[in-house]
Formats: sequence, C-alpha cells, structure tokens
Amino acid sequence: MEVVDSCEHQNECNGSRSSESQSKATTHVHHPHRKFHDTNEFEEPKQKDVEHADAVDVESVRYPDGTVRLRNPNIELMDQDILYHLALGSGSHDLVEMFGDVKFVCMGGTPKRMEQFAYTIMAEIGHKLPCGTTLQDISQFSYRYSMYKVGPVLCISHGMGIPSVGILLHEVIKLMYHARVRDPVFFRIGTCGGIGYEGGTVVISEEAVDGALRNVLELTVLGKIVQRPAKLDKRVVRELKALADPEDPYDTITGKTMCTYDFYEGQGRLDGAFCDFTENDKMEYLESIHKSGVVNIEMESLAFAALTHHAGIKAAVICVTLLDRLKGDQVLAPKEVLDEWQQRPTKLVCRYIKRYLQMKGRLSLDGHGSVSVKSPRRFKLVQQESETYD
Amino acid sequence: MEVVDSCEHQNECNGSRSSESQSKATTHVHHPHRKFHDTNEFEEPKQKDVEHADAVDVESVRYPDGTVRLRNPNIELMDQDILYHLALGSGSHDLVEMFGDVKFVCMGGTPKRMEQFAYTIMAEIGHKLPCGTTLQDISQFSYRYSMYKVGPVLCISHGMGIPSVGILLHEVIKLMYHARVRDPVFFRIGTCGGIGYEGGTVVISEEAVDGALRNVLELTVLGKIVQRPAKLDKRVVRELKALADPEDPYDTITGKTMCTYDFYEGQGRLDGAFCDFTENDKMEYLESIHKSGVVNIEMESLAFAALTHHAGIKAAVICVTLLDRLKGDQVLAPKEVLDEWQQRPTKLVCRYIKRYLQMKGRLSLDGHGSVSVKSPRRFKLVQQESETYD
Repeated sequence: MEVVDSCEHQNECNGSRSSESQSKATTHVHHPHRKFHDTNEFEEPKQKDVEHADAVDVESVRYPDGTVRLRNPNIELMDQDILYHLALGSGSHDLVEMFGDVKFVCMGGTPKRMEQFAYTIMAEIGHKLPCGTTLQDISQFSYRYSMYKVGPVLCISHGMGIPSVGILLHEVIKLMYHARVRDPVFFRIGTCGGIGYEGGTVVISEEAVDGALRNVLELTVLGKIVQRPAKLDKRVVRELKALADPEDPYDTITGKTMCTYDFYEGQGRLDGAFCDFTENDKMEYLESIHKSGVVNIEMESLAFAALTHHAGIKAAVICVTLLDRLKGDQVLAPKEVLDEWQQRPTKLVCRYIKRYLQMKGRLSLDGHGSVSVKSPRRFKLVQQESETYD
Repeated sequence: MEVVDSCEHQNECNGSRSSESQSKATTHVHHPHRKFHDTNEFEEPKQKDVEHADAVDVESVRYPDGTVRLRNPNIELMDQDILYHLALGSGSHDLVEMFGDVKFVCMGGTPKRMEQFAYTIMAEIGHKLPCGTTLQDISQFSYRYSMYKVGPVLCISHGMGIPSVGILLHEVIKLMYHARVRDPVFFRIGTCGGIGYEGGTVVISEEAVDGALRNVLELTVLGKIVQRPAKLDKRVVRELKALADPEDPYDTITGKTMCTYDFYEGQGRLDGAFCDFTENDKMEYLESIHKSGVVNIEMESLAFAALTHHAGIKAAVICVTLLDRLKGDQVLAPKEVLDEWQQRPTKLVCRYIKRYLQMKGRLSLDGHGSVSVKSPRRFKLVQQESETYD
C-alpha cells in the first residue's frame, strides 16, 4: 500500500466561483450577518496570516471577501448539494439566509447536551427569540445529528467517534461555504479521561495524537493511506487559556490529547468485553504516554483537528476530565459533581464567545429567550395554576 | 510499531466463574428464557462446532451450559460492571431477569429506525404487550443509543461508524454475559452504497474488508497494532439467502462488504468538503474493488464482524443499497421509494426470526421484562453516571 502525503495530491481549486461568490455576496449585503465581519479586531485572521503550525495556503480556503472556500472544485459545479446527514440542501434551503450570520460552531457528543448548551449560550449572550417561539432541532429529520441555532452560534451534536464527527465536519464545512460564512471558529466541548489530572480539570488541547502518538489523522482514500496534520489553532488555545479565571476552583490546563478509535481496549481499559493485557501493561502504557505529554484521552479530537485544519478553520477542543486514568477506569463522582464539571468547558467557551461579541458591540444585554417575565413570583403562580387545569 | 496478532496475545480465562455460573444458572432455571435453549434444531451451534472461518476456541467463549463467556478475566472479579453507554449495570439491574430470554440482537443506525423495527418485529412474531403498556427506550438515560426489547428480540441503534458500533458491541456482549444468554445471534440491518448493483438490492455480507481490502479490523491497543479477523457466520448467511423469496421484486445477493472510516473521501465520493482525486481516479478504484468481489460499502460491518467473531457470536450484516456507486454519489430515489427499500433487509431478518421461533414452537409469546430493579440506589447511580459519560 502506498503512503501519500495529502498535500502532494491536491487539485488546485480553479477559482471560477470567486467572482460569482462576490457578486452573490453583494446581493446579500443587507443581511445582518455582514455586521459581524466589519472589523479585524479580536485577532481576526488576516488574508496572509491564518495561524496554523503547518499553515494551509489561505487562498485555497478563503475567497477574497473572507468567506469559506472548499478544497473541492466539484461542489460549485453541482446543481445542488444535499447535506444528507443534516437534512439540509443548497437547492432546497436558502442557506445564506438561514446560516449567513454564524460565527461560532460548537459541537459536543449528545443531542441533549447540545440542546442544553444552546439554552446556556442564549442566556449568556442575551439572545432573544420572538414571543411564541422556541428553539427547534434544525436537523430533526436526519435522525442523526441535532442542530440548534442561537444567533451567531450553531450548536450541533456529533455522536461518538471519528467517523461520526468526520461526516458532520464534511457537511458543516460545506454548510459554511454555502452560507458564505466568514472566518468561523469551531469548538468541540466534551468529556475525557485525564492522564495525571484529577476529575474536573479543564483541558484545552494543544494538538491531537492517535493511539500511537502520531500527530496526524490517517485516512484510506482510494486504497491509499493519506495523512493529515491534526493541528489546532495556537492563538485560540492562548486566548481560551487567558480566559480561565484564577478564581475558578479547578485547574485549566493545556496539553496533548490522545484520540482513539475504541473506548475499551483502545484506551487501555480493563473492563471491556475483551482484554488481553494486564493491569501492569496498562499502567506502563499510560505512564509512557503521560511522559510524552498526553494529558487526556477522548475519541473525536483527531478528526476535529485534522479536518478543520485542512479547511483552514480555526478550531479548539475543550474537555473536562471525569477521572484520572492513572488511578482507575471507572467514573466514581456523584451525578451533581459530574454535572457541575461538565459546565466548566461550556463556561470557558461562553466567555470566549461573549468576549468576541462584546468587542464587536454585538452583545445584547436585554432579554434571555422569548418569554419576558415581569414578576417571577406571579409568573410561577400562573404556570402552576395552569398546570392544574384540565 | 509492533504488529501483534491478537490470537498470540490472549490471556486464558481461568474459568473460575464456570462453576459459579452453573450454580447461578440453576437458581434461574425457572426463567422462561431457558425454554429457547432446549433443543439443537435450526442449526444451533454445538459445543465443538461453532462455525467460523477461523473458528475461535469454543471454551473461551461459552460456558458448559452454552451461555456467553467473556474473553476478559477481569469482569467476573468486579463488584459491579457499569455498562455506561447503555445506562445499565450488573449491580443495579437484574440483567438475567431483564434480558435472560434474548435470542436475537438487531442493530441499525438511528434510534428511529430501530424503534420502527421493534414495532415491526412485534407484529411479525405476534408479541403482545400487557394492556396499558408500550415499548420504552431502555437506554433513554444514556442519551446515546436507543434500546427496545420485544420478547426474545433486542433492537438497538448503533450510531454511525466503527467506534460507535464498537463501544455498543463491547457493552452488549457484556450484557449477554451478565444476562446468561445462550448462543445469541446478532444482526446489523443497514443501508449502503452498491458497487455494480442498483438501488434497492439486498446485500447479505459474506465478510467485511477495510478500505485497503484487508479482511481484518485493525486496533491500536497499548500502542501496538492488533488485527482481528472480520468474519461473519457462513451458515447464517446461507440460511438468510435461502429465505429470500423468489417472488421478491428485487435481488438478494451475497458478497464482500467494504467498511470505511469516512463517508466522503473514504468511499471515493466527489462531493465532500475535500476532494483531491478525479472522477477517473474514483471510477478506476471502484471498478478495481468491484473486481475483487466487493458488492457494497458501508461504515460499521468491520467492527461488527470482528468483535462478534472474536466473541464467538453468530452474526450477519444485511443492508439495502441506496444507489449504485458505479453510477453516481448522490441518492436520487424519492422518499417513498427509499422507505420501501429500507423495509427489505428488515423483512429478511423478520423471516429468519419467525422461522426460528416457529421451529421452537415459540411464535406467539406472552410478555417478559419490564425493568427489574435489584438495588434502587445503584440503579439510580448508574442512570446518573451514564447520563454524564461521553
């Protein structure tokens, strides 16, 4: 089998959409989302300064107006592009109208957690829904992922594992293109096992490595192995780290994240259906990856880092540890503690988004959600009375 | 990196549970599920005759009474085993009471599809629920997989991709062990792309291969590569094929199934967020795998085949093609047609299960299994912990 570096294999986008893109952008110039992109504050990437360790060529991932360009010349030639797993399509939906104002895409494992995140960020940024409306799962008819939109923030569940988050990323990156989104930032908010860090520690990933400590996502494409660097944006890591509050009653650290294809044997757990190694083998392995700088293990960061990096999209992975794997395999903290722990990465991402919107003068401080409450006491009374009516 | 064949690396189970197992089995001898295992008809595997291409040693995967034995000596030494992603536990739930009568485990991608399958199989086998009851998602508190139980048939959604189905298989195989299920049969019912077969064709997989045509699942365990044969049960394949009705207005074929880690580039699609190859490269590749005997491509069969084979569990993968990939990448059939197509693998599995129950004189079953709680405190703890786990 031949090993090919993906960079040697790229077709050049022919750029034919570039001018078309601009003329369409002009048509949509009245859309509110354009307001987000007027200035270059908050370290907006400049055309020649997208910060990545192995920087991708900016022209291959951005049109001159800063909107996302795809490293696939086929899409712009298609009559319509169906984002099958999102239940959206470029021919069926006005994706610019629906998603043109998106700036942040936040992903996490389960539909429930992302719905909760949507309501949290709604309150945090003071986003108001029209009276009589509530959030709706935009991808409900896909039966796969759940997607909620709160103004400039898109909240999507990604399921478990690299293939699941990989399908989603392909389609969300295409969504960014169709919606003409400029310089979006992607976050993965998750849970993980800590390596040498106790439960409740917030980990911002510096980069992702696979089970053999390689900093690449390996794909088999047309029978050939392709490797893509699993890099995350160093600047966003720094900015996030700076937003950790010294008063936080927990540590917020940065380090290498190991990403595996399996939860049990792949993470050296002794409690799967199969186990061919001893406790000693396991500890030796965990100690060795700890020495290599791995601070946590989860199951999505490798694809998340590699695909966003390849698309030139700034991205970060922020997880909370549920246990220290050097001390065991089982999560023993009670539910209230675990619930509070899971708020921690969410809080950090909320701070980041709020800070950004503040700097853009876009933080609305009035109203949380659609229901306007004048007197909480009376409000509750009405709710309770209403509940008892048949 | 060292490449280790998993067979050379196995610890022998010490068999200490074997006698304990038998004594417990005696305690549970009154359970209705024992009725399923009285005879050896319908090609029940005999102790020295589990049919697999590379047959696993029967003693490593079965106790003398035919119940599932784990290839992991640690589990029987644990105080309790929490099946995190299923929201079940061996200390909190009476798993023998809840699942002891299971004979068939049917898996498919989405919760919705598996709920529909549950109602279909319920009607097909004439399973009756007590008045005033309905099916309930047993794993609803996991927020990850959905699980429905219809008498001897367990219906579970597995999400997308090898890691997602892999986590589920580890936990379901452990569930079979804890519930003392004898000789279960696992089915994956899914959709796929056909290679040289038009949409609507039913494909029974003979074996699974990866994107490089290797008939193994490759895992990284403690930094070393382990390969597991991705074999499926030849006898079940034959039995399923024999149940295809010549009157069916579609073909039911058998062949090799390719399983990939990605839906877009990994399956040679031109319409992902990235594409570094040409239409010609793609066609050349698809033609070459077609010549090697690959008849369809999907994303779970490799783990499904490898993990069930390693556990000595009979398994089959039955998918319907949604398109012929030699003719395109996009699914163009209208929804009503796709819905009818998706009934086809379901029908075949229903015929198999009905035939089995007919031969056992068990076709109309009266109910078993509301949730049995052994320890309410632990029950609650398991639910809570599972909710917070990634």
